[in-house]
Amino acid sequence: MADTLASLRSLMASHSPPLDALVVPSEDYHQSEYVSDRDKRRGFVSGFTGSAGLALITMSEALLWTDGRYFLQAMQELSDQWKLMRIGEVPVVEIWITDNMAKDATIGVDPWCISVNTAQKWERAFATKLQKLVPTSPNLVDEVWKNRPAEEINPVTVHLLEFAGRSVTEKLNDLREKLIQERARGVVFTALDEVAWLYNIRGSDVSYCPVIQSFAIVTSNSAFLYVDKRKVSPEVNAYLKGSGIEVRDYATVSTDVALLGSDQLKPSSAAENGIVADGVPVEAEKAETDESVDLIWIDPASCCYALHSKLNADKVILKQSPAALPKALKNPVELEGLKKAHIRDGAAVVQYLAWLDKQMQDNYGASGYFLGGETKKLGQSEKLTEVTVSDKLEAFRASKEHFRGLSFPTISCVGPNAAINHYSPEAETCAEMDPDKIYLFDSGAQYLDGTTDVTRTVHFGKPSAFEKACYTAVLKGHIALGNARFPNGTDGHALDILARASLWKDGLDFRHGTGHGIGSYLNVHEGPHSISPKPRSVPVPLQASMTVTDEPGYYDDGNFGIRIENLLVVKEADTIYNFDNKGYLTFEHITSVPYQTKLMDLRHLTPEEIEWLNSYHSKCRDILAPYLDETEMSWLRRATEPVSA
Amino acid sequence: MADTLASLRSLMASHSPPLDALVVPSEDYHQSEYVSDRDKRRGFVSGFTGSAGLALITMSEALLWTDGRYFLQAMQELSDQWKLMRIGEVPVVEIWITDNMAKDATIGVDPWCISVNTAQKWERAFATKLQKLVPTSPNLVDEVWKNRPAEEINPVTVHLLEFAGRSVTEKLNDLREKLIQERARGVVFTALDEVAWLYNIRGSDVSYCPVIQSFAIVTSNSAFLYVDKRKVSPEVNAYLKGSGIEVRDYATVSTDVALLGSDQLKPSSAAENGIVADGVPVEAEKAETDESVDLIWIDPASCCYALHSKLNADKVILKQSPAALPKALKNPVELEGLKKAHIRDGAAVVQYLAWLDKQMQDNYGASGYFLGGETKKLGQSEKLTEVTVSDKLEAFRASKEHFRGLSFPTISCVGPNAAINHYSPEAETCAEMDPDKIYLFDSGAQYLDGTTDVTRTVHFGKPSAFEKACYTAVLKGHIALGNARFPNGTDGHALDILARASLWKDGLDFRHGTGHGIGSYLNVHEGPHSISPKPRSVPVPLQASMTVTDEPGYYDDGNFGIRIENLLVVKEADTIYNFDNKGYLTFEHITSVPYQTKLMDLRHLTPEEIEWLNSYHSKCRDILAPYLDETEMSWLRRATEPVSA
Repeated sequence: MADTLASLRSLMASHSPPLDALVVPSEDYHQSEYVSDRDKRRGFVSGFTGSAGLALITMSEALLWTDGRYFLQAMQELSDQWKLMRIGEVPVVEIWITDNMAKDATIGVDPWCISVNTAQKWERAFATKLQKLVPTSPNLVDEVWKNRPAEEINPVTVHLLEFAGRSVTEKLNDLREKLIQERARGVVFTALDEVAWLYNIRGSDVSYCPVIQSFAIVTSNSAFLYVDKRKVSPEVNAYLKGSGIEVRDYATVSTDVALLGSDQLKPSSAAENGIVADGVPVEAEKAETDESVDLIWIDPASCCYALHSKLNADKVILKQSPAALPKALKNPVELEGLKKAHIRDGAAVVQYLAWLDKQMQDNYGASGYFLGGETKKLGQSEKLTEVTVSDKLEAFRASKEHFRGLSFPTISCVGPNAAINHYSPEAETCAEMDPDKIYLFDSGAQYLDGTTDVTRTVHFGKPSAFEKACYTAVLKGHIALGNARFPNGTDGHALDILARASLWKDGLDFRHGTGHGIGSYLNVHEGPHSISPKPRSVPVPLQASMTVTDEPGYYDDGNFGIRIENLLVVKEADTIYNFDNKGYLTFEHITSVPYQTKLMDLRHLTPEEIEWLNSYHSKCRDILAPYLDETEMSWLRRATEPVSA
Repeated sequence: MADTLASLRSLMASHSPPLDALVVPSEDYHQSEYVSDRDKRRGFVSGFTGSAGLALITMSEALLWTDGRYFLQAMQELSDQWKLMRIGEVPVVEIWITDNMAKDATIGVDPWCISVNTAQKWERAFATKLQKLVPTSPNLVDEVWKNRPAEEINPVTVHLLEFAGRSVTEKLNDLREKLIQERARGVVFTALDEVAWLYNIRGSDVSYCPVIQSFAIVTSNSAFLYVDKRKVSPEVNAYLKGSGIEVRDYATVSTDVALLGSDQLKPSSAAENGIVADGVPVEAEKAETDESVDLIWIDPASCCYALHSKLNADKVILKQSPAALPKALKNPVELEGLKKAHIRDGAAVVQYLAWLDKQMQDNYGASGYFLGGETKKLGQSEKLTEVTVSDKLEAFRASKEHFRGLSFPTISCVGPNAAINHYSPEAETCAEMDPDKIYLFDSGAQYLDGTTDVTRTVHFGKPSAFEKACYTAVLKGHIALGNARFPNGTDGHALDILARASLWKDGLDFRHGTGHGIGSYLNVHEGPHSISPKPRSVPVPLQASMTVTDEPGYYDDGNFGIRIENLLVVKEADTIYNFDNKGYLTFEHITSVPYQTKLMDLRHLTPEEIEWLNSYHSKCRDILAPYLDETEMSWLRRATEPVSA
């Protein structure tokens, strides 16, 4: 690590212009949330392996900014040479730089690893002290990273219409209408899930996310995919060609964006590209002759500064990607797939709970999932850990049709670990299971027909009154949000309080958002909507056929954590009236996994809440039955027995 | 009216430069919500007397923009020469101008009657078509308004410390600290209620609002009040002088703002002003020698464009007024006064309800407030109207200690009129009372110790099942919001859904906001906080000791309207826990008037809601008893009898 910093500082000094500081962000060229191993540059230079963080290296200091989820982990992983900068307690990086670095200082960054939004924000801050953001090329970290993992050549696969529900031709037609509305000559897609969604292709370049390292450009009469061509088989190439998509080398995107800007970007063979799939001729001439259509659309939140700099700023539309909303609005085939995937996934989780219940009783003398009795002392038995049990959960999922892997690292945590948001257990260091402590697991999988994400919190022994009170408050919030009805036009922020009001009543709260969208065999976190305590500068109203999670929690530091999460689909509500003809919306729960009634203080549930709970449980029983054996089914019957206050 | 338009167009033509259009806003020089009669220029030119609206006069057209509350009234009042522009259905005025008026068009406006925010928004819009906003001087409407009411010389009174709770000296000290923090040399107050609040003075220049036509300027070592000096008695002048305030002529504010900008504004006698009340010397020299303190603070939402144009834009802080938040945070004396005023006011409302109940039975054969029976046919009897009954309500209030008038025009409406938000009955045209229709009254008064605002909806006959369902949904929202608990930092927007969720459940909603602050013997509508369905660009979290109304409703066009309104005071909540040490808040209801249980569908209230209702009613009974005679008290006992589901 010491060598790394010294080597980097030497490169900084010899850079033209010499750099006073180098920023190493967590992001890859696509501003991804999860990145491939060879893109974990910030992890390599700092030693800190958490998913979120930013390193700043000056000639005398090395600083790492990260948020509250990772303070503990960063302190353990960072060497003496590094200083931990706790987000929320210290200035943000650009303010730290203006406060602490000299006038005229030069701050280097790989312009491919920083978004337009971030770069512009930093430049505004730096300008107050005449400091300068300097794009470095090549990436200085890559220069010193001796054992950087080689690029994996993972094949591109076609996401079949039976799962995608909408052809590329249809998606491109819709997109081109939007381009005309915005007077855009073309659009550059940089977010990996947007490229995959638009072209109905998938890959395995990034763990947990079935995406491909790629870019896309679409104009009125052409569509390009920028990817390592070795990943594209002749069959996939033929599919793409048939959809009017030309495959070009990943690195070509840079020059092609510049060509797009100067209206010089042409398909390699115009004859081939005049006809798209289904034989529909593109109205190429009309668009080309309209000189007012001269803008280039990029999403400043995901597009890197490097590509933006290839364009004339006056001719750029900086606006949310035109793929964001269509991707979020699931089509009927995607919705059906998501529901089926969630049934299989729910069955896997129930199998896991039934298995774990028995293990906890047999190995630890627990009274078990259903009884709240004292734990019996047993002799030596098999040791279960947070990791060994979650491996079993993965195995249950892997046995299901269309399984393609997990959708994120499983959060499987006992007692105090459950109070750490985004805790991810490691085999060597994780905790042993404990029948006298709360166990929280938040997990999901990628299936060809849908992506899943579910959280349950359980106790195999005797929960404390406080644990039950907190579980009940979280559950009440989960039910209140999940059963909300609201008019069209309502942003998720307005609904957020429904998930918190029951906690606030007792002076409790949680520090994270309440809901995120989910992809269709794509990223587990997806926008543009969300259910968040933070208002948004431009609201994104919830619309029918969007997906969103419902996951309130409560975390008692050093003690236990509770989170309950279902996936919801927004649908039209069957209200008695329809005031103002707005149309009203509600949610459908598509997750089918029982809640542990033992953890509930039933006296604090209203008759409506109890009625909903019993009906949800009854639905779980019916829906999961075909996937369970007799032992599992009898466990489920018991877990879903009706309760009363 | 025809003459008025012709005269105005003639003035527009001879103006330098000639005007293609003239805008006549509703606002006075202080951007007030309620204005004095001589400031009702828009009403004079258009004939439309509603409180909100904007007139635009071009050489060929006369257009009036107003909102949904006033469509009906505007259609009745506007002559053929005028075209009604329905806000929500047509472009806003500045967009209409850019869409419909020529390139380079000149649009005149009195710069005293338009806020900085509005003027800047219009100028940005006009710039796209090289159109120009032209300040007119003098006001062209005043030139043609032959019988414009003369200015009334209403005396300025001192708002005694026993009601104000905080001396001017204390308020000025706090204010000057804020000026230092913002590096401001001075601040200009233009909102009438802010001047009245800051200097602890009141007046009667505007109906319903005990304010004075005035401006104020405060610097580190001086304080000025700009007012017609005839309104200031020698005693009041002495009081002001003793508080370090110099009285100057109203019209002087214009030159004084310019002097303030160039650091030339000095008190008439420096010797006198070196000492403020209580003999505390002002640290004048220190502030004056600090050259970095050179900014002038104005609130762009309330400050007029005319005063802003006297200042160097680079040296102006455009920010919410420093009086807004301190005025909203009621001090203990103000809180005590508000509570006492609400008790007396609640007694008046109960006396009114008991009286009205008897009148409806005696004159109309109604089954009455308590019974839901059929109305008996009676012979001729006394005719009651929306206005005659509300006069009686005013009489009950006027009999109470410290009464100073109403706080806004009483909304007293029967049946379909109740569906019109902000309906204000006129003696000549109002409806007769009807025992078979819902009756809604929204009213309040000014008392020396506090301002009140309360709405109740009642039925003296047999309400329909739909009316009861709607009343119950509104009541549930009212209770949910009024009993909310939430952490410090929560903006009112986040709470708004609590008042709507029960309506949304059935596909119902209402088109207005849910809550506004209220003054202390000051304006009935007060910011900066609110409870609104619209998110705010800069959130204003609710804080302990703020006041806010809780007034959800439902309006069935052409049929009936329901609204229930209490005044709440934000206070610290006594929660079991205190997660994140945020501190939790809740509300205290300070309105004491029963809800009509006959209008409730008790089966749809939860046990918690019924418990709250019974406890609220029991409190009403105890609190109001000292103010009621035996007949009234027996009515109240019956109105507050405990209910069960």
